[in-house]
Amino acid sequence: MTDRVLSVTIALRQQVKPRLLKKRSAKTGLPPGSLIHIGEEKPLIPRITVLHYNEEECRETEVEDIEQCPALQGTPGVTWINVEGISQAETIEKIGKRFNLHPLLLEDVMNSDQRPKIEDYDDYLFIVLKKIYLKENDITIHAEQISMVLGSGFAITFHEREGSVFDPVRQQLKNDKGRIRRLGADYLVYSLMDVVVDNYFTVLETFGEKMENLEVQLVANPGTNTLKTMQSLKGNMIYLRKIVWPLREVISSMERDRSPLIQDPTHVYLRDIYDHSIHIMDTIETYRDMLAAMLDIYLSSISNKMNEIMKVLTIIATIFIPLTFIVGLYGMNFEYMPELKLRWGYPAVLLLMFAICVFMVLYFKRKKWF
Amino acid sequence: MTDRVLSVTIALRQQVKPRLLKKRSAKTGLPPGSLIHIGEEKPLIPRITVLHYNEEECRETEVEDIEQCPALQGTPGVTWINVEGISQAETIEKIGKRFNLHPLLLEDVMNSDQRPKIEDYDDYLFIVLKKIYLKENDITIHAEQISMVLGSGFAITFHEREGSVFDPVRQQLKNDKGRIRRLGADYLVYSLMDVVVDNYFTVLETFGEKMENLEVQLVANPGTNTLKTMQSLKGNMIYLRKIVWPLREVISSMERDRSPLIQDPTHVYLRDIYDHSIHIMDTIETYRDMLAAMLDIYLSSISNKMNEIMKVLTIIATIFIPLTFIVGLYGMNFEYMPELKLRWGYPAVLLLMFAICVFMVLYFKRKKWF
Amino acid sequence: MTDRVLSVTIALRQQVKPRLLKKRSAKTGLPPGSLIHIGEEKPLIPRITVLHYNEEECRETEVEDIEQCPALQGTPGVTWINVEGISQAETIEKIGKRFNLHPLLLEDVMNSDQRPKIEDYDDYLFIVLKKIYLKENDITIHAEQISMVLGSGFAITFHEREGSVFDPVRQQLKNDKGRIRRLGADYLVYSLMDVVVDNYFTVLETFGEKMENLEVQLVANPGTNTLKTMQSLKGNMIYLRKIVWPLREVISSMERDRSPLIQDPTHVYLRDIYDHSIHIMDTIETYRDMLAAMLDIYLSSISNKMNEIMKVLTIIATIFIPLTFIVGLYGMNFEYMPELKLRWGYPAVLLLMFAICVFMVLYFKRKKWF
Amino acid sequence: MTDRVLSVTIALRQQVKPRLLKKRSAKTGLPPGSLIHIGEEKPLIPRITVLHYNEEECRETEVEDIEQCPALQGTPGVTWINVEGISQAETIEKIGKRFNLHPLLLEDVMNSDQRPKIEDYDDYLFIVLKKIYLKENDITIHAEQISMVLGSGFAITFHEREGSVFDPVRQQLKNDKGRIRRLGADYLVYSLMDVVVDNYFTVLETFGEKMENLEVQLVANPGTNTLKTMQSLKGNMIYLRKIVWPLREVISSMERDRSPLIQDPTHVYLRDIYDHSIHIMDTIETYRDMLAAMLDIYLSSISNKMNEIMKVLTIIATIFIPLTFIVGLYGMNFEYMPELKLRWGYPAVLLLMFAICVFMVLYFKRKKWF
Amino acid sequence: MTDRVLSVTIALRQQVKPRLLKKRSAKTGLPPGSLIHIGEEKPLIPRITVLHYNEEECRETEVEDIEQCPALQGTPGVTWINVEGISQAETIEKIGKRFNLHPLLLEDVMNSDQRPKIEDYDDYLFIVLKKIYLKENDITIHAEQISMVLGSGFAITFHEREGSVFDPVRQQLKNDKGRIRRLGADYLVYSLMDVVVDNYFTVLETFGEKMENLEVQLVANPGTNTLKTMQSLKGNMIYLRKIVWPLREVISSMERDRSPLIQDPTHVYLRDIYDHSIHIMDTIETYRDMLAAMLDIYLSSISNKMNEIMKVLTIIATIFIPLTFIVGLYGMNFEYMPELKLRWGYPAVLLLMFAICVFMVLYFKRKKWF
Repeated sequence: MTDRVLSVTIALRQQVKPRLLKKRSAKTGLPPGSLIHIGEEKPLIPRITVLHYNEEECRETEVEDIEQCPALQGTPGVTWINVEGISQAETIEKIGKRFNLHPLLLEDVMNSDQRPKIEDYDDYLFIVLKKIYLKENDITIHAEQISMVLGSGFAITFHEREGSVFDPVRQQLKNDKGRIRRLGADYLVYSLMDVVVDNYFTVLETFGEKMENLEVQLVANPGTNTLKTMQSLKGNMIYLRKIVWPLREVISSMERDRSPLIQDPTHVYLRDIYDHSIHIMDTIETYRDMLAAMLDIYLSSISNKMNEIMKVLTIIATIFIPLTFIVGLYGMNFEYMPELKLRWGYPAVLLLMFAICVFMVLYFKRKKWF
Repeated sequence: MTDRVLSVTIALRQQVKPRLLKKRSAKTGLPPGSLIHIGEEKPLIPRITVLHYNEEECRETEVEDIEQCPALQGTPGVTWINVEGISQAETIEKIGKRFNLHPLLLEDVMNSDQRPKIEDYDDYLFIVLKKIYLKENDITIHAEQISMVLGSGFAITFHEREGSVFDPVRQQLKNDKGRIRRLGADYLVYSLMDVVVDNYFTVLETFGEKMENLEVQLVANPGTNTLKTMQSLKGNMIYLRKIVWPLREVISSMERDRSPLIQDPTHVYLRDIYDHSIHIMDTIETYRDMLAAMLDIYLSSISNKMNEIMKVLTIIATIFIPLTFIVGLYGMNFEYMPELKLRWGYPAVLLLMFAICVFMVLYFKRKKWF
Repeated sequence: MTDRVLSVTIALRQQVKPRLLKKRSAKTGLPPGSLIHIGEEKPLIPRITVLHYNEEECRETEVEDIEQCPALQGTPGVTWINVEGISQAETIEKIGKRFNLHPLLLEDVMNSDQRPKIEDYDDYLFIVLKKIYLKENDITIHAEQISMVLGSGFAITFHEREGSVFDPVRQQLKNDKGRIRRLGADYLVYSLMDVVVDNYFTVLETFGEKMENLEVQLVANPGTNTLKTMQSLKGNMIYLRKIVWPLREVISSMERDRSPLIQDPTHVYLRDIYDHSIHIMDTIETYRDMLAAMLDIYLSSISNKMNEIMKVLTIIATIFIPLTFIVGLYGMNFEYMPELKLRWGYPAVLLLMFAICVFMVLYFKRKKWF
Repeated sequence: MTDRVLSVTIALRQQVKPRLLKKRSAKTGLPPGSLIHIGEEKPLIPRITVLHYNEEECRETEVEDIEQCPALQGTPGVTWINVEGISQAETIEKIGKRFNLHPLLLEDVMNSDQRPKIEDYDDYLFIVLKKIYLKENDITIHAEQISMVLGSGFAITFHEREGSVFDPVRQQLKNDKGRIRRLGADYLVYSLMDVVVDNYFTVLETFGEKMENLEVQLVANPGTNTLKTMQSLKGNMIYLRKIVWPLREVISSMERDRSPLIQDPTHVYLRDIYDHSIHIMDTIETYRDMLAAMLDIYLSSISNKMNEIMKVLTIIATIFIPLTFIVGLYGMNFEYMPELKLRWGYPAVLLLMFAICVFMVLYFKRKKWF
Repeated sequence: MTDRVLSVTIALRQQVKPRLLKKRSAKTGLPPGSLIHIGEEKPLIPRITVLHYNEEECRETEVEDIEQCPALQGTPGVTWINVEGISQAETIEKIGKRFNLHPLLLEDVMNSDQRPKIEDYDDYLFIVLKKIYLKENDITIHAEQISMVLGSGFAITFHEREGSVFDPVRQQLKNDKGRIRRLGADYLVYSLMDVVVDNYFTVLETFGEKMENLEVQLVANPGTNTLKTMQSLKGNMIYLRKIVWPLREVISSMERDRSPLIQDPTHVYLRDIYDHSIHIMDTIETYRDMLAAMLDIYLSSISNKMNEIMKVLTIIATIFIPLTFIVGLYGMNFEYMPELKLRWGYPAVLLLMFAICVFMVLYFKRKKWF
């Protein structure tokens, strides 16, 4: 028993931990805009990559300090600065100065405990996303924060940890000379958002497979383990929903607000990504409905089993109680019990008990009790 | 027991399978607009029919390649291109080039895992619908995607599988010289949407009949089978609701947004079809309420049965427990138990037990316990 | 048992039947605007009454064919055409031609399976209402469709069955020379809607009485019959809500949209009728709350009874189980059981058992178990 | 048992009665604007008080007939006509004529079965409120209708019964020469509404005290009486919510619609009263949450008790069943049962049974069953 | 048992008390704008601090009377008047006169029973907030009202009790010469609101820790204490939600309404604080979900235990009932029972019973009953 509860609780804790409020108390009382890292991750030395491209060329440089970064806005084209690791205030601050970013924006970049959101600072847009992933052999969703700044001719992205999620876009930029090299920073940001959102589908597919396994388990051996998995999946769905819901608003507001930073051709693509986000919401809802249905089946199967057990007891008890009374009756030690003396007394009683037994079974059958 | 759960689970799986997310992972990392077919269906060689009509004539041609298609926009009238089978990227791409369609639109056409939606690409409207049908002897809704492009003077329709659902419209076009031949491509698209929506009524009628059967079953023999059917119907209702809800928005937005592609006389017809979609929503809600009521009756009947069984046990046990005590009492082997020696001891005890029995029955009766 | 379920199911079916989707499949594939009667009623030969009135006079004629109808728009005043029976396509079509009505409107008139709605066809308004009534000794709401066309100087009303519901208005028109004769067709339509809505109050009053009876039953003899009636009332409330909700929208849109067909003085009256519809919604909600409260009381009384029965068994069993053990103990046949030989053995055991009994009763009392 | 249900039902009925629809059937079929009193109260001879004031003076007259009323609009200032008793159509009609009020307004005044509402008749505003009060030793809310007409320079108030609720305002008018005497009829109406709303707080405070008592009861002796009170309080909260919700809308619409009858300085006061209404809604919600929490505690305490009883039975039965079997075993009458002959047979069996007993108790302890 | 209920109830009361409506009846009937203190706190002699600052200097004075306050609006800069203790009507009134505040505003300041709100009095904004805190070793949220007036060049803050919550801002003003000294009174008010909102995070963090402890408890020893804590946490979450919800509206309306009193640079900061409030709402929702999940685990663990107990009883009883019958059978005293005479009768019966026992255990095993 306690084993089961223990494992359930461990599962619960795994699921709960990353969703608890991250320590913010360190910041209470500091003036707004103070750069203090909020998040669980161990400090990571930030890695800065600068990728500059236009229709002709595409150059990637890794710099240690943003000030080493080559004169960017001289050559025409788009500059993408990718920062992995957000715990060093100094680095973030330098980038902030270099691109003239608002202190509150920098504060939000360093605070990995944000909801997906978009903020319009006139000269640039600030976008916060959550990349999700599953660790191996685990059905708990982990989320990592990705912040993006979309300026005129440049885009900056900040990863909480390492940023391999953007590799496909990097490859496209280097190999392909098509649309992505022709269009501006807004299309780049769209492409980056697109890979993040596509990632959600991958995670949902994994959940879909888990749910198919669950069904098999529900037939073969519906134990407390099944229940545990169902509750864990449900918890993850709720969590995912909480991340996707504001994401949808972010994309919808990008599409709707028509900031001058986002050019016309990109809007069709944003509508497409908006569609994806709705599709994800829909899938989450469907999965939740399916889980609810499975839980219903599980519970009704458990309660069915219990009822069956109770019914058997009831019937056995109800049959034997009168019989036991009868044998007790003739076990009395009265001196004058004429039946005891009769030759056919014993077989008669046996017959009587058999008759009672048959009668009761028939009665229960007619009542459809079993 | 396990048989029942097995069958329930099979039913669940049938119901669940088509609603799981279709494999999209193949697309992760590809640039947007990449044409890759997403769907379950086995590849189907596409079948393209071109139907050109105006008030005087109506000509139908089947072509293998859209480029074989006769010069369409020369003669006045409406051209309807009907494509069955969406898994061949090449075909879709050619059509896209021929009519200058946006790559994202083509991507959506090939991805059969879409919600009903409408998108305005200025030069043409893109509409995604779901046609639903039931397989024989089955109460699980299957959905098939139908995409439509409404341009100026032409309409293109894409079916996931074969497209006999549009036969009535095709017949009208060929035989009738009335309204449908006179009005433009917008009225054609309306007519096509109308047959798709009318189809929903047919499916709902079948469900209505199933529900009448369920009621009969609920009286005659309310077993686990009844429960299974109820849960399955409920699941289908939820699924249907998910399809119809966005459909309603599609039609409402067509009626409201007043695209120049849709002429004035067609708007009254769109309002009518919008009305139908609301009516479908209403019927679904009513069916859900009825199912909930049936489930209540089923559950209360099960729990009633259980209570009745428990009550019988309780009463029998409660009556016999004291009697069994008494017979046990006089079964004791004490040497000095004066009652045992008495001539009338045995009949007196029998009488006493009978009196206790009568008293208890009366007491229970007065308490209205049975 | 089965009797109860049977009667519940019959009640359910009565309640369910009229709410199932009416057969529409006959229409699938026909072009929109095809006049086919959808409804349960047996064909009824339509009865057409023409009532023409102005401030001076009021003339009523019964015609067989709308073309026999005297030249209406010659004399100033309002013409009210009342049609009872909507199953004959021919009649409806003639009326449609005579007043230049849209085919979709005529289709809706013949289809008795509509939601209350209002549609603005510029030259006339089309209104669909539901008249409700209870059959004798029945608590199931039956609904009948009433369609109205409000044109300039005329109003047409269509009844699914006979139309005595409008008699009070007819009487007012004939006897009274007041407001109703002075104001136009819009006030006439308002008056007709008013009597339909007033009808709802009558039905709700009947339900109110049923609910008072239910309460008495809940005290005197809360059986399965009570439950059945509660469930039936609840079902009817849900159904009524479904009818009244769109009605409210209809009236609100009439008041708000300010069609030129509705003159200013009538708007105050529409606001009044809108108020009534909100009042009806409120009453329905209140009744539902009351039913829920009654159901709570019913269920808690049933579960209380069950608990009480279980408690009695538990206590009797718990008291007698140790006693039965003791008497069994001294029923053993060991040769060397010194107690059995003792003179005071029997009374001592009796005393012991009595003491145990007293102790347990006191223990249970202290624990407040009974 | 029946006693309890009886008392619950009586409580239910008290609570239900005033909320059933009042008899309206008398009105069905009458033309709109017919003055018929709808309400429960016995006819009351109306009492009309006229209070005329301006910054200098304040005169109060009681008149029998509104036509006896001194020429009001001659002197500058505000006239407040207060009518107690609304069942005499004649009186209401005279007032209507005198101030040129719309017949529908008069109909609404006489119909005490209205929701709080506000209606703008251009020349005057019509406001319907509900005054609530508790009868002594009762926790059932009774509501009484107050209608107000705010015209230019005058205000008319109608009470269903007697109208002492306005006494504080009357006192202020007579004694104070401040704001209320300076500002117009709109401020008077505001003041009157304010005392009505303040009344709600008084009733809520009483409920608050009842709830504190309930808590004490929940500790000391949580019986069916506690449940009854909780259900009754809950019902009253639902009822109160239904009254306050539209009241909020009334005040919000007064503040928002900026009728010329309401002058600018009064708007700040309306905002204040609007705030009060939100505060009342909030308090009701809080009380409902608290009641729900109490109900949870009550139910879990009841179910805890039941579980405890069942557990005791189970444990006693489980311990004694094997023991009873053993004593039965040695009560068998076989001739050749060697154990029976043994000298230490009896003590050995006693020991064995004691060991079984100890083992089971330890087993249950380890399993933490008690 | 009663102990548990007692402690639950005490917890409930602690939690309930501060949320009951505060005594307002003292005010019923008084004209609006009457200054009467509503709140629980014992009268506190108000403490007034005046802090005047501009970019060059920052002077703090403590005054006893607001009229002693140095000529404020002479020197350029911002004046912040901080009032601790709101129960003295005289003090509040003097401040009101000095700054020309509306009587209703002053009434609201003294009434500590307000919802968070914002009111625009053209010349100044009035903001009501709730500061929350936990007493030591307590998980009950206590709320204290803070009112703020933002005028042109000045800000006034009123605390229900002492106001150390603003100390960080006071420190910043004195030490820092940065943004806060440069920007106006609007930025000051923002800073003050920011520390209040940051406080919410601190409380939520404490709750997060309590919830981690709860989980540990849920594994180790899930008793009624765990349930109590869960219910208490849940109640606090509901309460917190009620406070934060209107707070969100307050901030959103400040950001949206663009009062001239709030300058442009401050808007970015308001957006940030708005973000925080959404984050708090989100955290509350997450905590509620987690609590619901924990409650599910607790309840299912309780019900599991009960089921297990019942199952053991059922199985033991079901096995022993037939055996007891058999031993009773051979305990009968019939003279002619041939089996009793047989030498191998006793061992045969023992064997039979053993066989029955084995058979039943195997049967139950196969049925997977244990």
